[in-house]
Order: sequence, then C-alpha cells, then structure tokens
Amino acid sequence: MPSTIYDVTTWTIPSSPDTTAFTDIGAIINSIIADIKINQPSQASKPGAVVYIPPGDYSLKTRVVVDISYLQIKGSGHGFTSSSIRYNAGSTATWHEVWPGGSRIRVENTDGNAEAFLINRGGSPRLSSIEFLDFCLDGVSFTPNQNSYLNGKIGIRSTSDTDSLRITGMGMVYLQRGIVITGADALSVTNNFIAECGSCIELVGSGQACVVNDNLIGAGPLGFSIFAENHFGLLISGNNVFPRGKSMVHLKACTNSTVTANRLHNFYPGMIVLEAACANNLVASNHFLRQRESFPPFHGVSNGWDDLYGLVHVNGSGNTVVSNHFSFDVPPSSITPSGATPTIVLVKSGANNYIATNHTIANAAVKTVVLDGSTTNTKVLDCGTNGEFNPLAGATFGFRATP
Amino acid sequence: MPSTIYDVTTWTIPSSPDTTAFTDIGAIINSIIADIKINQPSQASKPGAVVYIPPGDYSLKTRVVVDISYLQIKGSGHGFTSSSIRYNAGSTATWHEVWPGGSRIRVENTDGNAEAFLINRGGSPRLSSIEFLDFCLDGVSFTPNQNSYLNGKIGIRSTSDTDSLRITGMGMVYLQRGIVITGADALSVTNNFIAECGSCIELVGSGQACVVNDNLIGAGPLGFSIFAENHFGLLISGNNVFPRGKSMVHLKACTNSTVTANRLHNFYPGMIVLEAACANNLVASNHFLRQRESFPPFHGVSNGWDDLYGLVHVNGSGNTVVSNHFSFDVPPSSITPSGATPTIVLVKSGANNYIATNHTIANAAVKTVVLDGSTTNTKVLDCGTNGEFNPLAGATFGFRATP
Amino acid sequence: MPSTIYDVTTWTIPSSPDTTAFTDIGAIINSIIADIKINQPSQASKPGAVVYIPPGDYSLKTRVVVDISYLQIKGSGHGFTSSSIRYNAGSTATWHEVWPGGSRIRVENTDGNAEAFLINRGGSPRLSSIEFLDFCLDGVSFTPNQNSYLNGKIGIRSTSDTDSLRITGMGMVYLQRGIVITGADALSVTNNFIAECGSCIELVGSGQACVVNDNLIGAGPLGFSIFAENHFGLLISGNNVFPRGKSMVHLKACTNSTVTANRLHNFYPGMIVLEAACANNLVASNHFLRQRESFPPFHGVSNGWDDLYGLVHVNGSGNTVVSNHFSFDVPPSSITPSGATPTIVLVKSGANNYIATNHTIANAAVKTVVLDGSTTNTKVLDCGTNGEFNPLAGATFGFRATP
Repeated sequence: MPSTIYDVTTWTIPSSPDTTAFTDIGAIINSIIADIKINQPSQASKPGAVVYIPPGDYSLKTRVVVDISYLQIKGSGHGFTSSSIRYNAGSTATWHEVWPGGSRIRVENTDGNAEAFLINRGGSPRLSSIEFLDFCLDGVSFTPNQNSYLNGKIGIRSTSDTDSLRITGMGMVYLQRGIVITGADALSVTNNFIAECGSCIELVGSGQACVVNDNLIGAGPLGFSIFAENHFGLLISGNNVFPRGKSMVHLKACTNSTVTANRLHNFYPGMIVLEAACANNLVASNHFLRQRESFPPFHGVSNGWDDLYGLVHVNGSGNTVVSNHFSFDVPPSSITPSGATPTIVLVKSGANNYIATNHTIANAAVKTVVLDGSTTNTKVLDCGTNGEFNPLAGATFGFRATP
Repeated sequence: MPSTIYDVTTWTIPSSPDTTAFTDIGAIINSIIADIKINQPSQASKPGAVVYIPPGDYSLKTRVVVDISYLQIKGSGHGFTSSSIRYNAGSTATWHEVWPGGSRIRVENTDGNAEAFLINRGGSPRLSSIEFLDFCLDGVSFTPNQNSYLNGKIGIRSTSDTDSLRITGMGMVYLQRGIVITGADALSVTNNFIAECGSCIELVGSGQACVVNDNLIGAGPLGFSIFAENHFGLLISGNNVFPRGKSMVHLKACTNSTVTANRLHNFYPGMIVLEAACANNLVASNHFLRQRESFPPFHGVSNGWDDLYGLVHVNGSGNTVVSNHFSFDVPPSSITPSGATPTIVLVKSGANNYIATNHTIANAAVKTVVLDGSTTNTKVLDCGTNGEFNPLAGATFGFRATP
Repeated sequence: MPSTIYDVTTWTIPSSPDTTAFTDIGAIINSIIADIKINQPSQASKPGAVVYIPPGDYSLKTRVVVDISYLQIKGSGHGFTSSSIRYNAGSTATWHEVWPGGSRIRVENTDGNAEAFLINRGGSPRLSSIEFLDFCLDGVSFTPNQNSYLNGKIGIRSTSDTDSLRITGMGMVYLQRGIVITGADALSVTNNFIAECGSCIELVGSGQACVVNDNLIGAGPLGFSIFAENHFGLLISGNNVFPRGKSMVHLKACTNSTVTANRLHNFYPGMIVLEAACANNLVASNHFLRQRESFPPFHGVSNGWDDLYGLVHVNGSGNTVVSNHFSFDVPPSSITPSGATPTIVLVKSGANNYIATNHTIANAAVKTVVLDGSTTNTKVLDCGTNGEFNPLAGATFGFRATP
C-alpha cells in the first residue's frame, strides 16, 4: 500500500528532477496529484492523500489543478503579516523580517494563469472534501501601486461544483482575490486570516448550506470581504471583519441566509448589502462601526457609495434586521453628499421587511431607517425616534418609535 | 521513553501479525491502546498518545474500546461525500469515485457490536480529554433500503461519564447513529460534517456545559440532528443544520441551555422541540426554513408531526424565543391536516415563556404563535398581527401585535 | 535547506547534552528557537518553524522566550482534567490517573520567572502569526491552598505588541493566569479549554480586532474568565463560560466590542461588567445563569459584589444589551445585602444605553433593570414590569413595560 502522505520538500518530479518545492511548488503538487491517481486507480477506493507543506518560503510558478476528491493540502502556519504596513512604512532596512511566513507560498505564476490553486473536474460526482489547512498564500505585491489591490492573482478558485470543501486556518495576503468558489454545497470556510486582499471570500454562481464562520477578514476598497450570489442557506457567523471592502457582506440574490454575531468595521457605507432579489435573510446581533478612513494612504478613497446608501442596504422582500448595534462616527465634513443626513438602514426595495430593536449611536444626526417609496409593508420597531425615521412618499409600513 | 505516536498502518498486533489496519483497524487500535497501557503503568504519568490514521480505506471489524484518558485519534481528512445521492443515482459506472474518502473507516463490525468506538471505563476519575479529529466514519450502506437510515451502526458512543472530550473535524455518513455520548461534562463537538446518518449528535443521560458549534449536520427522517436530554448549560451555536431530522434540535428536559445563531432547514414541522420539562432555555437569532420535501426518494415521508405542531414546539417554563427569522414555504396542498392553518411557534405547556421579535414570512396564512390552553403568562411581542396570534381558551398571556 | 520541523523529544542542546524535554522543555524550546535563527539569517526569508510536542509529561523549568514570528508550537492533546475535583476528593489511591495529560507541560519554573511562554521583541515589525496549538499547560498545584488559585504562574504572556497570533485547542489548568496578551491586533483565541485558572484570558494594555470564540472557560473566584482593557472591535462569541470568575466577561474602557451567543454561568453577580468608559458595545443573545455556589470547598466565597451590582453592570455610554436570557436562582437567604431585591442589569453611569427584549426568570422578586441617578436617556424596552424597573432619582429614560 503506497504511502498517502506526501511532503513537498522531499518529492521529486520524475520528468524534472531539478524542480523543487522552493523553485516551483505548483509543479511539485501537480506531480504529487498525478502520483495519487496512479496509486488509486480503482473507482472503489480513492481515499486521497495529504500534501504537507512544512514552514518555508515556496515559489509557485505553475498553477495547481486539483481534480481529485479528498485531497488535504496542509501547512503548519498561516503566516500572515501586514504587507500593507510594510509597503507604506518607508525604509525597512532595520526590520527583523519583511515578508509573511509560516508555510508560505509566494504566488508568482509564470504559466499565464491567475490561480495558485484551481479546483475543477467534469463528470460525476462533484469533487468532495478537498481541504486547505493552515498555510499561507502570499500574492507578494500589487506592483506598481502597492495600495491598488490589483495584481490579477487568485488564491483558491473552483470552477466546477463541489461538496463539503473545507478551508480552515489559512492565511492570505496581497492577492487580488483570495477565495473564489463556484457552485458550493456545504462548504466550510472557518478560522482563516484573509486580509489585504482585493476580495477575500467570493461564493459565485450559486450554492447552498455553506458556512463562513470565525474568520478574520478585511478586503481592499474595491472588493468584498464576503460575497455570495444565488446562495441559499448560507451561514455567516462569528467573523471579525475589518476595513476595508466595498462591502463587507455582500449578498446578491441570496435567500434564506443568515448573518449573525459578526463584528463589522469599515470606512464606507454599504457595510452589508443585499443586492437584487434577496429574500428572507436574517441579519441579527451584529456590531457595525462606521468611521472615516484612518490610514493616510487611503485618505480620499471611497467605495463609490455616499452616506445615503445605508450601512445596511436592503433590496428584496421578507428580510429581517434585528438586534444589531450601529456606531456611526464620521466627522460632518466627511459626510457625502455634503450636508446630507446619513442613513443607517436603507430599505431600497421590496415588501415585508422587518427592522427591529436595532440601536444606533451617532456623532451626527442620522436617519436610522429610510424606506424607499417603492417599498411596502416594512415593519420598523424600536429603531429610533419619529424624527430618525424617513419613509419616502409611497412607502407603506408599520412603525413604532423607541419610547 | 517509548514513542507516544502510533501510526495504524505500521502497527502490528503481536498475537496476530497478519492483521492490518486495512483488514481490521479496530483490532489494531485496541492493540495500540493495550500498548499505551503497558508503557504508561504509573498512575502519576499517563499522558496518553496519538493514534494516527493516514488517508486510506480501512475496514473496522472489531469495536474499539477506549478506556484511557488523553487518547487522540486523528486522521487527515473528513472524507464526506453523499452516499444518498449515489445510491439514488442509478448507474455510477462512469463516476470518478463512489465512496467517501479521506482517513476513512468502513464500519463493518463482525464482532456483534454496534459501535465503531466505545468509550467506557469504571472507577475514578471520569475519562478526560479523549479527542477524535479529522477522520471519516462510514457506515457504508443501509441495506436493503438505502433510504431507511437503519443499519444499527454507531460511530462513537460513550456509556460512562466523561470530561472535556473533543470531537472536531470528523466526517460521518450512513451510520444509524453518529455520536451518542452519555453523561458529558464540557464536551466540545465542533466543525464536524455529520450527514446522512439516522441521528447525528445525541447527548443522552445527562450532561452539562457542553458545546455543539460550527457543525454541518443533517439527519434522516426519523432521527435527530442534535438531541440532548437532561442537559444543563448546553450551547448550540453557529451550526448549519440541513434536512432532514425528525427534529433538528431536540431538547428533552434540558434547562438553561442556548440555541443561537444557527441556520436550520427542514421538510417537517418540529424543527426545534423542547420536550418534557424544559426550562429557561434561550432560542435566539436562528434562521428557520420549512419547505416541502424536494428529493424524490423521500416524497411522502413524514416525521409524524403535522403543521399544527409548530416549527418551534415548546414545553416547559421560562424559555425565551427571540430575534429569530421563520420562512414557511409549503404548498397549501401539502399542509397537514388538510386545510389547517400552520403553526410557527407552539407553546404547548408551561408558564412564563417569552416569545418576541420573531419575524415570519409565509406563503400561506399561518398562526405565528399558538398558546395551548394550559399555558400561563406567556409574553408574545412583535411576532405578527392579532389575527396571527392564537391563544387557546384558558391561556393567560401578554400580547402586543406588530404594528 | 534545514528542516523546519523540530520535535522536542529528539532535540539536544549543543551546550547541554543531558537536558531533555522531560527534564526542561523550556530550555529545549529556547535552543530550538536559537537554531531557527541561525538557519534563517536573511531578513528576506524567515518563515519560522514548527516545534512539535508529542503526548508526554514534560517539565518546564526555564521560561521560553518567543522572539521570532511564525513559530508554531504544537502538541497532540489539550489534556485537561479537573485538578480541583482531585485535590478536593480525599484519597485518590485507586484512581486510574491523577494528572492532566496529552502534550502536557508542567509549569515548574526554577528560573525565577512566572511565565511558561513569554512573547517579546523590540523593534519592527511586531511579532506576527505565532501559534500555540493543542497542548496542555498545567500549573500543577496552588500549594499550600489548592483552592486559592494563587501560584504566580502564567501560561502564555506577551509584553510587546503582536499581530495575528493564534491560540487554539490549548488546555490550561491550575495556572494563576492562563493567557495575558498585551497590545494584541487581530489575535484569535478559539476552541481552547481553560479552566481552574485564577484568570483565563486577559487582553491587557490595548488592542483591536481580536476574536475570542468557541472556548470552554472558567476562572477562579478572584480572577476573570475573559478580561480586556482599552480594546476596540473585540468579538467574544460562542463561548461556554462556567463558574467561577470575579467576572466572566470584564471589559474595561473597551469600545465597539461585542459579546454575543455566549453561555454564562456563575455563582456571583457581575457576570458581565463594563468598567470605566465603555462605549458602544453590544451584549446580545447571551444566556446568563446565576446560582448559589454548589461546590462545598467554595461555600462562603464571594467576588466581593453584592446582588445590587447586577448580573450585567454597565458603565459608559451607547451600549446595547438585547435579546439575552437571564436566569436567577438563588435562595433568598443567600442574597446580599440581606433582604435586598437583586438587580439583573445595572446601568451605573453614562448616557444613551439601550436595554431591550431581555427576559428574566427568577426565583425571587428582582429588579430587571436599575438606572443610577446619574444616567441619562437610557432606553428600557420589554424587560419586565413597571415594578421590576427601578430608575433612581435623577435618571432620564424611555421605558416600556412588557405587556
């Protein structure tokens, strides 16, 4: 029975004996996957294997294509450090170290591909139970503008449906896109550290019954910390989501999903956005803090939305926004449009949304709930005073002011 | 100092040198446990050991009996894939693979026992800190009816009290009962994938201060996704619980326990049931979705409860049900009894229950809260209209309609 | 390329070949760290390493000083067992085992230091991504009084700023202080078992964007289960916090932090305390149970606060306390001051606090919310009857009784 444990530092590619994990870990892992296939030829027994990445600095020049189920790719250290601070720090000549570490893969594709890891397979069944654990994907730089969050690099992408994937304990930094998963069923993305990436977690196409829990996440100004489209039954809980991110949780045409017990902090409006026909989602017990940009390199950067957009922006029907805390702390001179009264929750469209028991603390006059004139039968309970409620002409609603 | 690291693929049973982990991993692990006892004879130093299960297909013919503390049984891959889809798929001749994988144990007891792993020890102290990590327990089949969820197999059972057990990152599939733990104190069941089992997690006898967080779970029609009896201080949070399950969180005579930030989806009423004398439990910030069965093999299957049973069914006093979202989306023709108005929350017995700020979206007229005539002093606040509230004769209550 | 994987049981200190991990694991790990530095001299490549601690009983006589980033110190077993039960059990002659286990470090410093592990480095950048995983730190005893929780021992302390540290899956027992972290940014403390320590988790100095999720925790009568000062954006979610602890979540001058979906059980008032100028924090969907001390050795022990202090004690402005359940179950004869009406939530100072939709079940008459006369504009909604609300003279507020 051949071993199912592979160490990238000891594997040799039969046809390319000079390649090492340090020169091209992508080629090494592809060769390991090929070996697993050779050793597991029977449809009746394909348990997969472990690809272990010890702490070290590895260069990835060739994209890895994962087309087998049950592959566990595992390192020993998420290795995050802030590259943003370093790139903006001036001289680092005296610094102890200057790069991320742990089991660190420098994503440096020279093969014309964008991804470090691509998950894809045709036929049946869907790929199942692929696991990425405890290593670092480092995009290295956003040359020429280190604050652009643009380099075209993607950490992990799937382009075919998957079941029961697990991405846990990873570190990602300076990638344009961290995780991009298509057609996810019962995906688990937990306990990762994904920051200083253009976008962090994108669940695209469609999906169901996924979990995004207990992560530390923070995207760039133009991307998303957590994005999902056409998802159903997505659970997003226990995450600490820090600046920036065009939006921090962006649900597009998602239904029956839930965003609870997260801490969200940003420098822009649109912290949670329900785009298009979102229905029957729950946003409960989250903490929101909206401040002005504090890091000089990003002064003046915006996500394109003004303060009338809402910290929570709701499109669609039947959604529930309850038991949240909102802190709004923006100097009046920074509010846009100039002189506007900022919006905390904007119900932009839809019927039967329920907004209750949310508490707002603001350093300026705000409208805690604004209803677009197209909206019907919204319930707004205990979210502020009569004066803080702004139902536009045509809106229908039930309202109770906080006593 | 003998090694405390055992690999099941390299261990040989002194008295049975032909047995391997591939022929009977149960016998192998029992032999390893015996060796640990030989090597740790002193009461003053029994640190335990690691039993490592590399990715592979292992047959378990002999039940493992764990009767030492601090044993960590660890694999490298939870290996879940849907056997239900496969068994109902017709020909799988062209499939890439047909079985679960990872560090996969086929539970095939030929020893007359039901359990793959039995935890049991008499005397003092209780067994402590046994850990099951990151491997797969596969019951293989529910022959002759692959949709019956009946085969008598149990993944992990304890029959004596334990402290500080940890079950994390496991995969379980096609077992009649996944986890059955008696007398648990400070048990942690987290980040597991337990689906297509008759019941998933059962905490029986009694217990206290346990945690069931961040799991992906889905039981069969007759079993429970999460069951607990006589528990105290149980925390159930951050789980994505998908169909089916007779009930998804079933608390029997549990007190001061809490069910928060979970996503629950089922095809039957009775999604959360508080049975018998449940007192002072909290059900908060959960998302409920009740639909009609969508998978043809289970059309017509029921858990035996009708739509008057409630998505949440409360017995006992002093419970709190707040800030939840309920989606009810069942074709009128599928509602039972025919012509009935479905119940969302049923307070069946008890005093001083508190039901507030729950939002229901339904495709049919529903009663959002029904109070049995025996109940007293229930508070029902902002859970719907006057017409959606149904206090039966004799019930006493405080009520405030959603404006 | 030298290996980056170190096993403490096979490492030899060049200058002290007789020292082993069993005689002084601290000296061994310090020597390993020195070797890592020798092997990673270049500022441009310091990925760190793994220090692996197999299951075993190790003595730590010399403090470990961690002054490199990306060091992962990892065991195979958190090894908790109750030393409190054992020390109070009388004869244990017939017990199977008497000590904690797993990868167990006995903290026995003979070097004059308090800490098992000290994290400290001057210069730039901050230390990043140090990880402590899955081993046991055992303080062994609180001699001469095993119930004193005093021995001066500290498990893990940092005294310089850090980024992205991870402490996961650890066990700690019988330390005076488990974790003491200064200046934490994006620290993650998850899935640990830290009990029978004077204090469990202390985040001191200041910090931001940290996560304390999914832990099992219980401090001694004089310490804190979770303490944080000058923190910002701290997320505390999904923890099961059991007795005792002077307070269980104690936030001192913390802002915009959030405490959600936790289960809290104690024998004293002051279960959550917001001390000094706490502002804009969220306390939502938690379960509180306050009982009388049940363990004979601690009968008569108190944390110094009486029943007028509040189970939740709020200082500062703009805080939100919503959707919590409170169980109060204390024999009237044990209430202090004698004859007093206990307080559930005390707003001691500040403006614009919001207390809503909290449900209290008590075995005695209580005041569910008390407002100090100095407080202004508190909102108290649906937290009990008029008679259960006690605004002291001078307080301003909005109030709505539960119907």
